[in-house]
Amino acid sequence: MNSFGNIFRLTSFGESHGAAIGGVIDGCPAGITLDLDLIQAELDRRKPGQSRLTTARHESDCVELLSGILDAEASIPESESGKLKVTTGTPIGFIVRNADHHSSDYDSLRDVFRPSHADYTYFTKYGIRDHRGGGRSSARETIARVVAGAIAKQALRQVGIEVRAWTAQVGEIACSRDWTKLDLDLTESNAVRCPDLQVAKQMEELILRVKSDGDTIGGVVTCVVTGCPVGLGEPVFGKLHAQLGAAMLSINAAKGFEYGEGFDGVAQRGSQQNDIFVNDSDGIHTLTNHSGGIQGGISNGQPITFRVAFKPVATLLQSQPTVDIHGTPTTVNPKGRHDPCVLPRAVPIVEAMAAMTILDAYLLNQTVRLQQ
Amino acid sequence: MNSFGNIFRLTSFGESHGAAIGGVIDGCPAGITLDLDLIQAELDRRKPGQSRLTTARHESDCVELLSGILDAEASIPESESGKLKVTTGTPIGFIVRNADHHSSDYDSLRDVFRPSHADYTYFTKYGIRDHRGGGRSSARETIARVVAGAIAKQALRQVGIEVRAWTAQVGEIACSRDWTKLDLDLTESNAVRCPDLQVAKQMEELILRVKSDGDTIGGVVTCVVTGCPVGLGEPVFGKLHAQLGAAMLSINAAKGFEYGEGFDGVAQRGSQQNDIFVNDSDGIHTLTNHSGGIQGGISNGQPITFRVAFKPVATLLQSQPTVDIHGTPTTVNPKGRHDPCVLPRAVPIVEAMAAMTILDAYLLNQTVRLQQ
Amino acid sequence: MNSFGNIFRLTSFGESHGAAIGGVIDGCPAGITLDLDLIQAELDRRKPGQSRLTTARHESDCVELLSGILDAEASIPESESGKLKVTTGTPIGFIVRNADHHSSDYDSLRDVFRPSHADYTYFTKYGIRDHRGGGRSSARETIARVVAGAIAKQALRQVGIEVRAWTAQVGEIACSRDWTKLDLDLTESNAVRCPDLQVAKQMEELILRVKSDGDTIGGVVTCVVTGCPVGLGEPVFGKLHAQLGAAMLSINAAKGFEYGEGFDGVAQRGSQQNDIFVNDSDGIHTLTNHSGGIQGGISNGQPITFRVAFKPVATLLQSQPTVDIHGTPTTVNPKGRHDPCVLPRAVPIVEAMAAMTILDAYLLNQTVRLQQ
Amino acid sequence: MNSFGNIFRLTSFGESHGAAIGGVIDGCPAGITLDLDLIQAELDRRKPGQSRLTTARHESDCVELLSGILDAEASIPESESGKLKVTTGTPIGFIVRNADHHSSDYDSLRDVFRPSHADYTYFTKYGIRDHRGGGRSSARETIARVVAGAIAKQALRQVGIEVRAWTAQVGEIACSRDWTKLDLDLTESNAVRCPDLQVAKQMEELILRVKSDGDTIGGVVTCVVTGCPVGLGEPVFGKLHAQLGAAMLSINAAKGFEYGEGFDGVAQRGSQQNDIFVNDSDGIHTLTNHSGGIQGGISNGQPITFRVAFKPVATLLQSQPTVDIHGTPTTVNPKGRHDPCVLPRAVPIVEAMAAMTILDAYLLNQTVRLQQ
Repeated sequence: MNSFGNIFRLTSFGESHGAAIGGVIDGCPAGITLDLDLIQAELDRRKPGQSRLTTARHESDCVELLSGILDAEASIPESESGKLKVTTGTPIGFIVRNADHHSSDYDSLRDVFRPSHADYTYFTKYGIRDHRGGGRSSARETIARVVAGAIAKQALRQVGIEVRAWTAQVGEIACSRDWTKLDLDLTESNAVRCPDLQVAKQMEELILRVKSDGDTIGGVVTCVVTGCPVGLGEPVFGKLHAQLGAAMLSINAAKGFEYGEGFDGVAQRGSQQNDIFVNDSDGIHTLTNHSGGIQGGISNGQPITFRVAFKPVATLLQSQPTVDIHGTPTTVNPKGRHDPCVLPRAVPIVEAMAAMTILDAYLLNQTVRLQQ
Repeated sequence: MNSFGNIFRLTSFGESHGAAIGGVIDGCPAGITLDLDLIQAELDRRKPGQSRLTTARHESDCVELLSGILDAEASIPESESGKLKVTTGTPIGFIVRNADHHSSDYDSLRDVFRPSHADYTYFTKYGIRDHRGGGRSSARETIARVVAGAIAKQALRQVGIEVRAWTAQVGEIACSRDWTKLDLDLTESNAVRCPDLQVAKQMEELILRVKSDGDTIGGVVTCVVTGCPVGLGEPVFGKLHAQLGAAMLSINAAKGFEYGEGFDGVAQRGSQQNDIFVNDSDGIHTLTNHSGGIQGGISNGQPITFRVAFKPVATLLQSQPTVDIHGTPTTVNPKGRHDPCVLPRAVPIVEAMAAMTILDAYLLNQTVRLQQ
Repeated sequence: MNSFGNIFRLTSFGESHGAAIGGVIDGCPAGITLDLDLIQAELDRRKPGQSRLTTARHESDCVELLSGILDAEASIPESESGKLKVTTGTPIGFIVRNADHHSSDYDSLRDVFRPSHADYTYFTKYGIRDHRGGGRSSARETIARVVAGAIAKQALRQVGIEVRAWTAQVGEIACSRDWTKLDLDLTESNAVRCPDLQVAKQMEELILRVKSDGDTIGGVVTCVVTGCPVGLGEPVFGKLHAQLGAAMLSINAAKGFEYGEGFDGVAQRGSQQNDIFVNDSDGIHTLTNHSGGIQGGISNGQPITFRVAFKPVATLLQSQPTVDIHGTPTTVNPKGRHDPCVLPRAVPIVEAMAAMTILDAYLLNQTVRLQQ
Repeated sequence: MNSFGNIFRLTSFGESHGAAIGGVIDGCPAGITLDLDLIQAELDRRKPGQSRLTTARHESDCVELLSGILDAEASIPESESGKLKVTTGTPIGFIVRNADHHSSDYDSLRDVFRPSHADYTYFTKYGIRDHRGGGRSSARETIARVVAGAIAKQALRQVGIEVRAWTAQVGEIACSRDWTKLDLDLTESNAVRCPDLQVAKQMEELILRVKSDGDTIGGVVTCVVTGCPVGLGEPVFGKLHAQLGAAMLSINAAKGFEYGEGFDGVAQRGSQQNDIFVNDSDGIHTLTNHSGGIQGGISNGQPITFRVAFKPVATLLQSQPTVDIHGTPTTVNPKGRHDPCVLPRAVPIVEAMAAMTILDAYLLNQTVRLQQ
C-alpha cells in the first residue's frame, strides 16, 4: 500500500530521519524527454525554508535518479543539452538523502503520543515506530510524490495537458474569483502561492499572525487540469474523480475533496447545474462546466477542477497535554521546526498527485480499443 | 476497474436494461454466518418506488447467490433457520435479474447526449454505448454494491463494527445537530432517511416541491462507523480516509467527500482542532473527535465520521437543448421515471461502500504481524 | 485471487454442484465482434461426455452472457447475422447453470479426504468445504476460463494471432514430430485431440486400457501461438513465459510448464541453442526458434511454443484407503463419473488460458509509449 | 510489472551499468528481527567471482537498507548485537551501488542484437535500450530479489519454515538420489552447490570443460520448502505452485518449472501417484509425497518440492553472426566476463524467489478467517 497508480505507478519509501526518502516509478512510458532541472525545481517548490511562512528547517533535497533514463544525446542526437534525459521504459529508481537532522529534537518524544499526530495509531498498529520527526508519517514522504509528479508533468506536457494548483483559502480568507479570471502565472510570485495578489497578501498576514501565536491554520488548494482529452477515467469504481479524490486525500493533513460544484452545489437544482451541450467551431462541448470536467467518471474535455481541504498542522509551538505509550499523562513541548500553515507547500504536492493520476488514466485509456 | 477492494473485493457487471446486474465477491472470509433476509432488506432500502420521494419505477430486485455459501445447518448444527447460510471462503457470485424494462422509453435517446449524463463521455471513450437507461452508468449498477455491502455488514457485526448513514442535508435544509445527539434508529422511520424528524419533514416537503417543478435537488449523506479497532488503514497512499473517499466518490452523482471537520475545519486553528489524548477507565482515547476517527490515515478507535455530497440528478422532467452523436442540435424530452433527489436511496449505498472499505481494511490489517 | 489478468481480467466463481459457474470479464476492449456460436463451440470442446475417452457425465453447459455486449446490427449495420454481438468495453458477466447433479453420489464423501484431491487442504484452510463434486476445486471451474478464452481468441484473431494446442503425450506415448511438420487441423478429428493420427490411435487405446483397469493416466499438452508481434511481455517479473506459466499451472492437474527447449534443453550447449538473427525478405528474425518465441521475457515475433504436464486424475474407480475429517481410517469408493485421462479436455482449457494471457499482454503493451 | 507479490511485495529497479540496483519491499510484517549479516551473506552467495566456475567479474555488492528498520536495541532492549535490526512495518528501501563497470566492453555492442539475448526484443518494444551489460535484462537485476528473499527467509524462519535449493543437474550430469537421502548442509561445501559431492565433482569438471571451449551449459535447480503449515496458496488462479512457477520462470534463463512428480509423472498411473492419507502420532498426513506438498493448489503440510530448468547462458566466448539495429549483418565478439553456467549462482536466487512467494502466501492466508 505504498504504491500509487495502475500503469504509471509510484512505490515510495523512507522515514523523515532515516537515511533517505525515495521511490520507484514503474510504467513510465519509454521515450519521454526529461529535463532534470524541472524535477529539481518542483522539489524546491516543496522544500521547507522558502519563506517566513514555512518552517525554518533547511533541506537540500537533491534527487538522484538511479535507473530508467539515458542521456538524451545517446538516443536523440539533436539534443542540445547534457541535462536532457530520455526514459527507457524501465523503472526509474530515485533517492533523496536526508540531511539537517535534528534528531535529538525528538528525543523527548520517543514515548509520547503527540495530539492529532499518527504516533498513537502507528504504535498501536505496528507495535513499534520511528518517533524521529514523524518517521514514515512525516510530510517528507511527499518528496517521492513530487519527484514522480514532476516526471508525470513532463510526460503530460508532451500531449498538451497542464496541471496547475494554487492556494485558494487560508483560514477564512478565500480567493472567491472564478479561476478563469485569474492569472495563474502569478501563483509563484508570492510566498503563499495565491494568484490573486490582494488575497495573497491577506493570507500571508494571517499566517504570520497565527505563527506568532504559536498556532497553526488550515486552508484549501484549488487545482485545474487543462488540455485533457475526452475519455480519461473508468466508469464505475475507477471514476476519474474517485481516483483524484483518493490521490488528494492521501496527502498529509488533507480532510476533504470536491470537484465541480462540490459541496456548495448540493443546494442547487438540476436545472441550474446541468451543462448543456453545443456544437460550434470548437466541436461538441458544454456551455458551462458545473461538472468540473468529468461526467459519469470520465473526462469530457473541459478543464478538470477540484479543491482539497487541509487541516491546521497538528504540531503547535505551544505546550499540550497528552499521554505516553504507558498511558501516563505528560506534556508535549515540541522543539522541532514546523510550518504554521501547510498550504504554500501543499500546492506542488497537489499538482504532483494530480499529474500522476491523470497520466495513469491516460495510459490506461490506451487499452480501451484493440490496436492493430 | 470494475473491481473494488484489496482482500474483500467486489467485481461488478451489468447494464440497466441488460439481462442482469451482478457481481463476484472474492476474499470474503470463511465461516461468516449470513442471513439472506438481511441482504434482501438492504436491496429493498435501495430500490426505487419506496415512496413519493423516489422514482415510480418498480423493480423487484431479488438477489440470487450462486456460489460461495452453504446451508448453515450443514456446518453449524445449532442453526435455527433454513435462511441462515455460512460463507465457505470461495467467491460469492450473484445476480439480480433486470425486469420492468421500459426500454422503449429510451428509443428517442439512442443518438442523443443527455446533459450532464455519461452519454457523451462513454460514446467518445468506447465508440459505442448501451443507451437504454444509462447502460452501465445507471444507478442500477449500485445493486451489486448493496449486495456486497450487506454481506460485509454482517461480517463486521461479528467483530462489533456498525456502519450507519443518513440524509444530513437536502438542498439548503440541513440537519445541524451533532450526530451523537441524534437517535439513529429513527433514520428508517421516514422516507427521506433523516433521523431528525423535524428536519426530515422539511426535506420531504422540499423534495416534493422540486419534483412538482420537474426539477431535482442535491444533498449530503453523513456516515458514522462505530466499534472500529485502532489500526485500520495504511499509512501513505492507502490511508483509511483516502480509501473511504475513493469508495464514496465512486457512487453515482457524488461530488465531494470530507471526514472529521472537513472543509469547515480549514478555518480553525490547530489549537482548536487537536484531539487531546487521555487515559481513563476506557483506556487511552481522545477527548474530542475532530479527527473523525482517523489519524495519519489509521483508525484511532473513535467513531469514524464522514460526509458525502451528491449533486442534483441530471435527468429533469423538463425539456432541455442538447446535441446528438452527429453534433446536430436537438432536444431531450425524457420519458423515463426518475428520482427528484438521490439522497434517500443513496443512504444504503453509502453504508454498503463504507462496510466494504472497512472490512477490507480490517482483513488487510490482519497481515501486519506474522502470526504463529 | 479468483481473478486472472491485468487489463483483460477474468474473475470467476462457482462450485461444481452449486447453482452456477460464472465469471466477469473486465477490460475487454470495446468494438470486438463476437460470434456467440464460437463461444459455445469452445464450451462443447471442453464438456464431458464427448467420447468413450471422457467421463459419461452429461452437461449441457450453455453460457448466458449477461452484460457488456450489444447486438452487432445495432452498431455495425452491415452485420449479416443476429448471432453477432459487439463488445461495449463494459464488463461481460456470464453464467453457466449447473445441471445433471448427482449430488447424492457424493454423500458418502461428505467427511472423507479423497487421496490427492483438495479435500484435506480446503477443509484445513477454510474450516468448511463444499464436498459435492469437489466444490470449487472441481474442473467445472474451468468453464469460466473457456468462456473468457473464447472471447479472447476472437479478439486476438482480429489482430492476426492464433492459439492452437493439442495432446502431445499420453502416458509414455508421445508425438515426437516437430509441430511444424504436423497438420494442426487434424487435432479435432479424433477424440484424444492429437494431430498425428497414428499416435492418436495409440493414445486412445492406452486410455481405454487404463480406464478398463479403473485407473487413470497423465500426459502433456503442447501449445503454439502464432502471429504475435514483437514486444509482448514485461521484462522482469511479468516475463511473458512467467505469465504463461502461471496461467497453465493454475489449471487443475497441471504439474509442469516449459517453453522453447524447456527441460530437455538444459543438456545442450549455448552454441547449439542460440538463435541467430538474420535479415531477409521477412525482415529481422531468428533462423531457429530454440527460444520458443520469447527472449528476455518478451515475444520476438517467432511462434511461441510451450508444453504443460498433467498428472493422472486422482479419482480412481478403485477402492482406496484414507482418513476422514476426524482422522478415522476409512475407504473411498467413488461413485461419480470421471475421466480416465484429462488430456483431451485439457486442450481447449490450455488454449483459453493462453489466449487470455496473450491478449492481456497485448493490451498492456499498448501502454509502453505515450500516444498523441 | 517490476513488482512481485501481493502482501509481501518487492518492487525492483536498476540496470547493470547504471548507478545502482535497488528495490522497495512493501508489506513486510512489523517486528521481524533482521540480522544484516545474513542479508549480505545471501548477496555473497549470488555474486560473481566466487570460483573458477563463475565469471571473473568482481562486484562488491554491498546493500544499504535505507528505511523500514530500526536498531533492535531501540525496541528490543535485550538484543545483544548492534547488527540486529527490527522491521517497523513501513517499506524497506535499499540500494546496491554498481561498481567495477567495464562499460567500454560493451561499446561494440551498442547497435548489435546479441543472439538469444533481450537486445532485439527490448529495442523493438521500447524503441530505446541501455546496451551496457544487458541493462535491465542483466542478471544483476536479481540482486534485488536476493535482498528481499534474505529478509523473507528470516521472517519464515521465525515460523519454522526453511527454503533450500541446490544444483541438481548440469548438462546431462544429474543428481539422481532422492533429496531426503542427501545432506543438504553439503550444498555450500562446493563451488557448484550440489550436496552430492561425487556428482558435484563431475559437474565442476563439465563446467570447466565447457568453459574452455568458450561455450556454456544449462542445468536444473531443485528446491525444497520444509515446515510449511497446511493452507498456503489460493484455490484457483493463485494456486501455490502457479505462484511458485511464475516466480521461478521470472528468473533470467529459466525455461521450465515442475513440482512433485512433474513431467516424469505424466507416464504414471493414478494408482501409482496418489498420496494416501494416514493418521498417526504426527497427525493426519500423506504416506508419500508425489504431490510435492501441494494439493488443489494449497500446501498440505508435506515438504514442497519443485525443479527449475535453466538454459545455457546466451553469451559465448565465441564469435557469432547476427544483425545490428539497421538489419545489417555483423558479428558478435563479446569481451565481457560471463558465466559458463548459471547454475551455481542461480541457487540463492531460486531460494530468494521461493521465500518471497511462501511468505506472501503465508501472510495472505492470515486473511482467510475474520479474527476478533
